[in-house]
Amino acid sequence: MSRYIYTFGGGKAEGGANQKNTLGGKGANLAEMANLGLPVPAGFTISTDCCNDYIKSGGQFPKGLDEEVDRAMAEVEKIMGMKYGDPDVPLLVSCRSGARQSMPGMMETVLNVGLCSKTLPGLIKQTNDEWFVYDAYRRLIMMYADVVMEKAEGIEPKEEADIKTQLEQIMYDRKKEKNYENDTDLTVDDLKALCDQFKERVQSVLGSEFPDDAQQQLWGAIGAVFKSWNGKRAVSYRRIERIPDEWGTACNVQSMVFGNIGQKSATGVAFTRNPATGENKFYGEWLPAAQGEDVVAGIRTPNPLSKEAKTTQNAHLPSLEESMPEVYKKLVEVRNILETHYKDMQDLEFTIQAGDLFMLQTRTGKRTGVAALNMAMDMRNEGLIDDKTVITRLNTTQLDEILHPLVDPAAEEKTRPVAEGLPAGPGGAAGQIVFTSEDAVQWHKAGKKVVLVRKETSPEDVEGMRAADAILTSQGGMTSHAALVARGWGKCCIVGAEGAKVDGPARKLKIDGKTYAEGDFLTLNGTKGLVYEGELPLIDATADPRMNDFMKIVDRHRTLAVRTNAETTKDVETALKFGAEGIGLFRTEHMFYGEGAQEPMFLLRRMIMSDSTEERRTALDDLYPFVKDDIKQVLELMHDKPVNIRLMDPPLHEFLPQAEETQKRFAEFLGIDVKTVAQRCQALHENNPMMGHRGVRLGVTYPEISEMQTRAIFEAAAELITEGKRPVPEIMIPFCCDVKELREMKALVEEVYQEVCDRMGVEAIEYKFGTMIETPRAALTSDEMAEASEFFSFGTNDLTQMTFGLSRDDIGGFRETYMDKGIFARDPFQTLDAHGMGQLITDSVEKGRRTKSDLKIGICGEHGGDADSVKYCFRNNFDYVSCSPYRLPIARLAAAQAEVE
Amino acid sequence: MSRYIYTFGGGKAEGGANQKNTLGGKGANLAEMANLGLPVPAGFTISTDCCNDYIKSGGQFPKGLDEEVDRAMAEVEKIMGMKYGDPDVPLLVSCRSGARQSMPGMMETVLNVGLCSKTLPGLIKQTNDEWFVYDAYRRLIMMYADVVMEKAEGIEPKEEADIKTQLEQIMYDRKKEKNYENDTDLTVDDLKALCDQFKERVQSVLGSEFPDDAQQQLWGAIGAVFKSWNGKRAVSYRRIERIPDEWGTACNVQSMVFGNIGQKSATGVAFTRNPATGENKFYGEWLPAAQGEDVVAGIRTPNPLSKEAKTTQNAHLPSLEESMPEVYKKLVEVRNILETHYKDMQDLEFTIQAGDLFMLQTRTGKRTGVAALNMAMDMRNEGLIDDKTVITRLNTTQLDEILHPLVDPAAEEKTRPVAEGLPAGPGGAAGQIVFTSEDAVQWHKAGKKVVLVRKETSPEDVEGMRAADAILTSQGGMTSHAALVARGWGKCCIVGAEGAKVDGPARKLKIDGKTYAEGDFLTLNGTKGLVYEGELPLIDATADPRMNDFMKIVDRHRTLAVRTNAETTKDVETALKFGAEGIGLFRTEHMFYGEGAQEPMFLLRRMIMSDSTEERRTALDDLYPFVKDDIKQVLELMHDKPVNIRLMDPPLHEFLPQAEETQKRFAEFLGIDVKTVAQRCQALHENNPMMGHRGVRLGVTYPEISEMQTRAIFEAAAELITEGKRPVPEIMIPFCCDVKELREMKALVEEVYQEVCDRMGVEAIEYKFGTMIETPRAALTSDEMAEASEFFSFGTNDLTQMTFGLSRDDIGGFRETYMDKGIFARDPFQTLDAHGMGQLITDSVEKGRRTKSDLKIGICGEHGGDADSVKYCFRNNFDYVSCSPYRLPIARLAAAQAEVE
Repeated sequence: MSRYIYTFGGGKAEGGANQKNTLGGKGANLAEMANLGLPVPAGFTISTDCCNDYIKSGGQFPKGLDEEVDRAMAEVEKIMGMKYGDPDVPLLVSCRSGARQSMPGMMETVLNVGLCSKTLPGLIKQTNDEWFVYDAYRRLIMMYADVVMEKAEGIEPKEEADIKTQLEQIMYDRKKEKNYENDTDLTVDDLKALCDQFKERVQSVLGSEFPDDAQQQLWGAIGAVFKSWNGKRAVSYRRIERIPDEWGTACNVQSMVFGNIGQKSATGVAFTRNPATGENKFYGEWLPAAQGEDVVAGIRTPNPLSKEAKTTQNAHLPSLEESMPEVYKKLVEVRNILETHYKDMQDLEFTIQAGDLFMLQTRTGKRTGVAALNMAMDMRNEGLIDDKTVITRLNTTQLDEILHPLVDPAAEEKTRPVAEGLPAGPGGAAGQIVFTSEDAVQWHKAGKKVVLVRKETSPEDVEGMRAADAILTSQGGMTSHAALVARGWGKCCIVGAEGAKVDGPARKLKIDGKTYAEGDFLTLNGTKGLVYEGELPLIDATADPRMNDFMKIVDRHRTLAVRTNAETTKDVETALKFGAEGIGLFRTEHMFYGEGAQEPMFLLRRMIMSDSTEERRTALDDLYPFVKDDIKQVLELMHDKPVNIRLMDPPLHEFLPQAEETQKRFAEFLGIDVKTVAQRCQALHENNPMMGHRGVRLGVTYPEISEMQTRAIFEAAAELITEGKRPVPEIMIPFCCDVKELREMKALVEEVYQEVCDRMGVEAIEYKFGTMIETPRAALTSDEMAEASEFFSFGTNDLTQMTFGLSRDDIGGFRETYMDKGIFARDPFQTLDAHGMGQLITDSVEKGRRTKSDLKIGICGEHGGDADSVKYCFRNNFDYVSCSPYRLPIARLAAAQAEVE
Repeated sequence: MSRYIYTFGGGKAEGGANQKNTLGGKGANLAEMANLGLPVPAGFTISTDCCNDYIKSGGQFPKGLDEEVDRAMAEVEKIMGMKYGDPDVPLLVSCRSGARQSMPGMMETVLNVGLCSKTLPGLIKQTNDEWFVYDAYRRLIMMYADVVMEKAEGIEPKEEADIKTQLEQIMYDRKKEKNYENDTDLTVDDLKALCDQFKERVQSVLGSEFPDDAQQQLWGAIGAVFKSWNGKRAVSYRRIERIPDEWGTACNVQSMVFGNIGQKSATGVAFTRNPATGENKFYGEWLPAAQGEDVVAGIRTPNPLSKEAKTTQNAHLPSLEESMPEVYKKLVEVRNILETHYKDMQDLEFTIQAGDLFMLQTRTGKRTGVAALNMAMDMRNEGLIDDKTVITRLNTTQLDEILHPLVDPAAEEKTRPVAEGLPAGPGGAAGQIVFTSEDAVQWHKAGKKVVLVRKETSPEDVEGMRAADAILTSQGGMTSHAALVARGWGKCCIVGAEGAKVDGPARKLKIDGKTYAEGDFLTLNGTKGLVYEGELPLIDATADPRMNDFMKIVDRHRTLAVRTNAETTKDVETALKFGAEGIGLFRTEHMFYGEGAQEPMFLLRRMIMSDSTEERRTALDDLYPFVKDDIKQVLELMHDKPVNIRLMDPPLHEFLPQAEETQKRFAEFLGIDVKTVAQRCQALHENNPMMGHRGVRLGVTYPEISEMQTRAIFEAAAELITEGKRPVPEIMIPFCCDVKELREMKALVEEVYQEVCDRMGVEAIEYKFGTMIETPRAALTSDEMAEASEFFSFGTNDLTQMTFGLSRDDIGGFRETYMDKGIFARDPFQTLDAHGMGQLITDSVEKGRRTKSDLKIGICGEHGGDADSVKYCFRNNFDYVSCSPYRLPIARLAAAQAEVE
């Protein structure tokens, strides 16, 4: 039989902080505190394995558990000098959940367990406080009926309202009848009567009696804690936080201590440093004569912990330092012991029972991004932690938070969002709403801050999206066009705000019956997906000079290179600022969209409409100077850093005008029949363009296109060399599935290279030739692919699509269901699927390097900016990751963390 | 230095028949015949390795080759008693290509090499025939100038016409001038003058002299043979026949013997048995006083070999048996030696020089399907070969040929096709043309034979395609809808006949300026892709009872099971006749197309239009009886054989009406607004439906659909059990990418199973639950997939699409280029890509079986009926393959061949 139970208390414990998997976070830390000699009420933890066995067996406690409980309880009784279920010196216990990772409020707790007609008199005798005991009893009945009987044991209430609501109503009625304002106004008789009424109601509504037996209560409460692991709230929290179902929760059975026995008792929570700012000040709140839930519930305004920590709001309230200086001193000692021991900011819960301090919990405290940064740097200066630890102290989400302007949390607290959507682009922004891309551009030029509001966006909106401070769409998911573009730019964006009805033509936005017109102000919190009315203040956290110091430490511990996906000079400049060490993906087709794209787009379309190779060549010749200039600018900006240029990828029909009107205009331009244009569009139409005539297939069928692009690259480079620069282009062939495609393109590139070098009188251009790995077959045959490549760049967007058979554009119909049901633990387009697709990549890297040991390997999908994916790349010996400029610091941090880990 | 040269002649040889890779087929067999003591003119073979080295080095002969040639030539000279380049007893040689696999006429040959001004007098003295020698000389000049100088050495002619045409013109002019009818009318003086004229013209046109030196001629000829491996014709032949470029050709340098020195000389070709019928009769043709090329060229009608082999066409001509009885007797002896030795029908070339028989070639003879069958069975009866060999003697293409009615080859020879297209469906058919599916059905009902003519077909044409005897489309490729459907049915079909212009609305077909109206007759040879005007006679080869015997032998040597992809009772009956041992793929959605589909389709559409789960359930209830009956029929027909039923796979929008008119009619039916219908269609539209909301994703999001289908399967089975039958359904979940999807469906299926068993009072239904493996991720995680599956069925159509990133529908724009350039050696949708995708499958099978050793594994893509793919499945330990009914015999044969091999 495996061991299920671990006791703690009396200055020692059977477990410790390193046993979180078995004891849960709460249990492990209670044991640790006991071992540190801190005043922890004695108790025992029933392990997560027991929970899993209990759930698997359909709600049966494992054999032998009762004996283990008896043994553990006996030990607790010895330490506490009381006896569970004893009529004279009755011990009461709490049963609390506690998983490996904190899931605040998502699972159940039952307090005051062990109070029944047999133990009531003894407790009254012990505490000499009848009111307190009956109040504890009515609390137990309310909690037990709700948590254990109705929720856990699944007894259906015979009336519409649940038992909790009904009992609360009874109490409310009595208070009203007696004209009481607070619960504390109730008399002992009131409480006694209430307890009787409660028990009757439980019997009549649930058809079952409130158990008047300490043992029965104990097992009921333990079972309820275990069952709450699969409660609705807990399950959906796990989905969001990506916590595996298999972890299970532990159950902590601990002696009750009471913060509500008179004014010498109290309860409170504290942080060893300020969790909002990171300031090294003891910070917390406490309430005299209260139970823990009173602080959390927020019914009474809590008091400040110390004089120093008083704020304008609570300056008039007494601090613990003032009210109970002795206890406060002890608490400060505890704080120091814990911070020195854990070397990180702790979040504490304590209770003071009749002047005695008891510690109920310690855990690593949650903190804002700014606080995380400050604490890490402070603790480093204090000599508490080393550089490697500093790097792990700021997670990438916190870093992301710091990198963007934020809606001031104080302002946010004072108001309510009018709509919610998906948090597609981070940070906060406030501005006037506009409904078209053109307006966004014009208002922006006029110096206004604008929020572009659309049903959804398309590539034609790109300029307006760029000009806008934020983007709001009523449709689309996390991988919609708007979300992808905004994320790429690090721009505040909320998509799929379904409550918002957009009437584009009328330039109106309707939310909840209220209409917003062009020019009205909205504020968006893109990190949370919240939309506010009006203009809320923003704060900027990047100003902190510690940011720079922190990133320097990060880079010192990083070997994985970071590159950026960028094409415009603006993006490239941003990327350099954010630490780009090269360009990992320069999409040549970008130049046909956005500013100044009209003429190139027209020439490209003329090329596509060409009937013969001859015509196509002429059109390509006209297009050539645009392409060359475009590439040259970026090569020059990047100077001696590698620039990976991907040859034309999208299927040609993507560039042709689709709307009848645009087709007509285009036909007029070309001086041909509109029917011809429509026919060509029709002929090029594809059923599944993602797997159609694109990528290298264009190069194989229309080598003149690749030739033109290659010539542009080499000529741009040659000119720069002549000008004394050092361009380092890399030519990347997209969407290969067979090495023969690559060989064909390699021959073409080498021929153009020689021709350009000869003609321009340049001795050599430092360049590399390689391929994207984005079809499973390319990955499978990467030993061959490596023969014709100097580098691989994993195009994980497409590779994910092919590996899952999942179109990013068409996932909308089932994405939510798949996430809800946990079929996708994480969106595979956001975080690289290491489990499935990872096998393909790992294998492919290994095979490629077997053929060519110095093969350079990178990634250029969306995943290059995702922390877990970056770590995957590090573990798989990638040379670099590439991501959008704004994700660079995150990639750098993730890369360093991967190495430190 | 590796050895390049192998001599033969004088009753011995350095090589043998087992060295085809090195010596080529011709060289290996010449060596073998020499070893058998047959009269082979002495010579030597330069190996294919030499050819490859020659090509790799850009046309340089390997070092030391000249010494090897000298040594070999000396040996030949010794045997022949003549000397190459000698003025007194000059030896002439031929230089012939010969690859590992026969490539008839695709590469070059040069004859009479060694004839120059130095050797002319000696040869005249030897032969005492000045005319013969100068005729040989002018032939050499013509051939050499064309093959060696212009083609191989790439000398550009200075005039428009190539050198061959020009020299032929000179000869034609002289004959005309002198009023000669035949070449043989030319006098010695004419020939001498022609030779001079030829040499002058060569000099003036090619700017280079015809080499008057035996050594120079020899090396020129050898180089030309090697270079012809990369000639245009050879390369495109290799593409078609899928011969690797790396093989190279050997060069056979062999003493010339002459069939044209007087009437005691002759040349001929023979087959040891009749290659058209397989009849065990010596069969061949010969010409007196002729060179080999004369027989092949078909200028003179050749004579029959024996009295017995005379036909009505050549009965008046003298047989060799009659003309040269002694030589004939020797030839018959050679025939017997060779057949006994090779144990297969041989194709021979021989020359008789002044009464002496010389063997120039033997190889395994090409034969028709019927002949292959007859020969194999005959030779088995003769005790020449065993059962295993019998199985290998009929390839699957030949079997396929036998299985279909054929256009009578005799009739085909007498006419010319009016159009050509891709051979999409095998066999021949003749009928009256119609232009709509409805007409095809009606004319067919009226007892007429019809050819359905369309630009392209869609699922709505399926009924008409079924009714038609043949299908002809002007567009589409080998994987177009028409091709797939026709191939599945084994129906004669030609697609992409680009010369045919179809005007559907006008019911006219235009070919080459001629117009064909509805009711006009066409005959289609679907095996070759040829369209004939009028009604040609057909023959049926399946009548042969030997076919049955042959298949019995095949099945005795086969362990891999064969199943069929079928849904209709008609298909199932056909499949059972063709040996189906189960159904490997029953597509539940088939019932919404074809005969009697209107009502189910309407109900399905109503279901899709449903706004709520409630409404959807009601529609599904109405649909239920159709689904159940459909399944029950097939389960009953298959009785105790497994029926693998795939739950709904296509994305729902595929079922909605797309045309405005149909949408209107449908809206009227439903009593809703047409706009609502259009909107729903729009909402369901997908950019890449192949990777969209389909397969198991439908089941996960709309479990009520899967539930209905599962219930139908179990209820149908339960009813059959009650009726005393033994149904064996298998439930297959399509398009999974994660085992969690499968677990979800498994739970649903098990729940429905219990419910049906309980309700119908059936103790148990023998069923299996499993999945298709058709996304790369399913293959990669097949260890997990196997946990929730009792079987895997590889859906290699989709798996190919995902692995290559290649949409079968959209391959048209580049397929041809990819095949031409050899990027795809074979169409991956026809033959399973063992090299790339195979890695995924092999690995997946292995992983799946590691989890579950008795996991049943099959394939149900198009590949299940492709011989090479079936062999792949056998090698990878599949349990079964599944294919369309008409491909079953092919799958059976391929499976047996795989085991024998």
